[in-house]
Amino acid sequence: MTEKRPIIAVDAMGGDNAPAEIVAGALLAARAYDADIVLVGDEAQIQPLLGIDTPTNIRIVHAPDSVPMDQHASQALRRSGTTSLGVAVSMVKSGDADAVVSAGNSGAFLAIALIKLRTIEGIARPAIATVWPALKGPTVLLDSGANVDCSADELVQFARIGCVYAEDVLGRPNPSVGLLSIGEEPEKGNAVVKEANALLMQAGLNFQGNVEGRDLPLGASERGPIDVVVCDGFVGNVILKFYESVAPMIVKLIGEKGVSHDVLESAMETLDYATTGGAPLLGVKGVSIIAHGKSSSTAIRNALHVAARSVETGMSAHIGQRLAQRAAAQQGVA
Amino acid sequence: MTEKRPIIAVDAMGGDNAPAEIVAGALLAARAYDADIVLVGDEAQIQPLLGIDTPTNIRIVHAPDSVPMDQHASQALRRSGTTSLGVAVSMVKSGDADAVVSAGNSGAFLAIALIKLRTIEGIARPAIATVWPALKGPTVLLDSGANVDCSADELVQFARIGCVYAEDVLGRPNPSVGLLSIGEEPEKGNAVVKEANALLMQAGLNFQGNVEGRDLPLGASERGPIDVVVCDGFVGNVILKFYESVAPMIVKLIGEKGVSHDVLESAMETLDYATTGGAPLLGVKGVSIIAHGKSSSTAIRNALHVAARSVETGMSAHIGQRLAQRAAAQQGVA
Repeated sequence: MTEKRPIIAVDAMGGDNAPAEIVAGALLAARAYDADIVLVGDEAQIQPLLGIDTPTNIRIVHAPDSVPMDQHASQALRRSGTTSLGVAVSMVKSGDADAVVSAGNSGAFLAIALIKLRTIEGIARPAIATVWPALKGPTVLLDSGANVDCSADELVQFARIGCVYAEDVLGRPNPSVGLLSIGEEPEKGNAVVKEANALLMQAGLNFQGNVEGRDLPLGASERGPIDVVVCDGFVGNVILKFYESVAPMIVKLIGEKGVSHDVLESAMETLDYATTGGAPLLGVKGVSIIAHGKSSSTAIRNALHVAARSVETGMSAHIGQRLAQRAAAQQGVA
Repeated sequence: MTEKRPIIAVDAMGGDNAPAEIVAGALLAARAYDADIVLVGDEAQIQPLLGIDTPTNIRIVHAPDSVPMDQHASQALRRSGTTSLGVAVSMVKSGDADAVVSAGNSGAFLAIALIKLRTIEGIARPAIATVWPALKGPTVLLDSGANVDCSADELVQFARIGCVYAEDVLGRPNPSVGLLSIGEEPEKGNAVVKEANALLMQAGLNFQGNVEGRDLPLGASERGPIDVVVCDGFVGNVILKFYESVAPMIVKLIGEKGVSHDVLESAMETLDYATTGGAPLLGVKGVSIIAHGKSSSTAIRNALHVAARSVETGMSAHIGQRLAQRAAAQQGVA
């Protein structure tokens, strides 16, 4: 395991609560973790937020522009030379940082990371992995939106890279994998999912078969806990956005019956996306962590923790090694 | 509007709580609605459950066998001549009943209904429509599991038949339609969904564009309330099973903080599937209502109400008329 002190570039201007919550989260992380944190963005706005007692492991790199939340990815890409997001990603490309975190425009982040950092050898398509707050503990769900039309081979590769992430960052040895479908039997599903089920049986992973929508809140099927749930980015995105919206609705319905806000809030901590940090973009070189647009300082601190942990464990290199081993094994060389 | 006194065949032996809850629900419906109810199943088991004060609009048709909940559809189909499900569906085919309701094996119900009743002229593939308990009121979601791989044309047809159902049974004039995708812009989505968006723009429906996972709990997008949500049966099934499972989990988390069971239960009434009755199989001749396997007597009563309403309004015939009108309009005849 490669242990090194991580340098993490943070897009200080990206997100609904930027730059205040981003800077506050970076300060929390700088005090809590053994990592160097670089706030990228408008120095005139960031400096006053840092206060006088700034930790020595936090510094600013100036970038004059920022990417609006609703800007098209192609336009953000063209302007990436001067935006906080573009400069932060470029620091990973040049080796000035090991990881980049942004709560900004996620479509722009994805496009800029793909173009600037490029994919790891052997990766067909990078995937966004969301750490899903399930009852039995954090569960990795991927792809959660980077790829809408996926082949069976791509789903298998998502399983493989999701397992590396679960091992390295969540500390799960031999992670269990479930394929999201509409029934537990291998013959249930759409054409791609049925083919992926057959491929996953022979993939050398700890594959536990299909899981269903009802298994997601628990993070477990009838066959036991699931560490990595695989689906295409269309289904993953629909489910995640639904999850984010249904929990507050239920809390609202219960709150209307006179239950105190504090009680509801403490009950919902288990499901708070902020506790699980950001979503890694797996399969690109370096470490890119997509934080939620609504990130609070706590969410940013946790996203920085995920970034640091990914760097310390050498997660990105492990993905490349795992794919190379698999390719060698399939050719009978290993 | 065809107004007739509906005759509804109920599979008395299908469902986790059959026959007791099915018979109890049929008794509730017989007393509440102006409809004739036929309980199909083992007379020796059903008769004692009816009690002595049986309403005159309820009767038994004997069927010696029943379909196990986990039996494969093909096997259930072969044995359908003597099972309660098979005999109940056959009553619709022969005209002895107008509608069939079953809380039993839904895969078997789907297969038997398709083979015995056949599809309405012009229907490519029937769809299961679930009435989704959204905050703004019941919303029709289809397909919820009958078709896993769908073409764009099929999604448009689901929109069309879902609108007839929303008009006739939910009483929504000119129902609004949303297409489930991963962003509100027409260019967001997988290949089939993008094509379906373009087709729906010209379909002559009240199409409100794409809706996202976050819009589902509310039953509305930023452009207003949505009456009919269209998706393929893979996504629909995953979302529905997730919804069924996430609400109890959240209630459990809150209950652990000492909130009383009664308060939680009353808050969750809005989301109770039992209040919305069963899911119609739209596109087959006659009326087939798939009730939830866990149906209580209340859920069965409500499913029978949906069946009665579908018959009274002539919903199934309207689907055929609507498709014929559309075909004529497209040929420039109308």
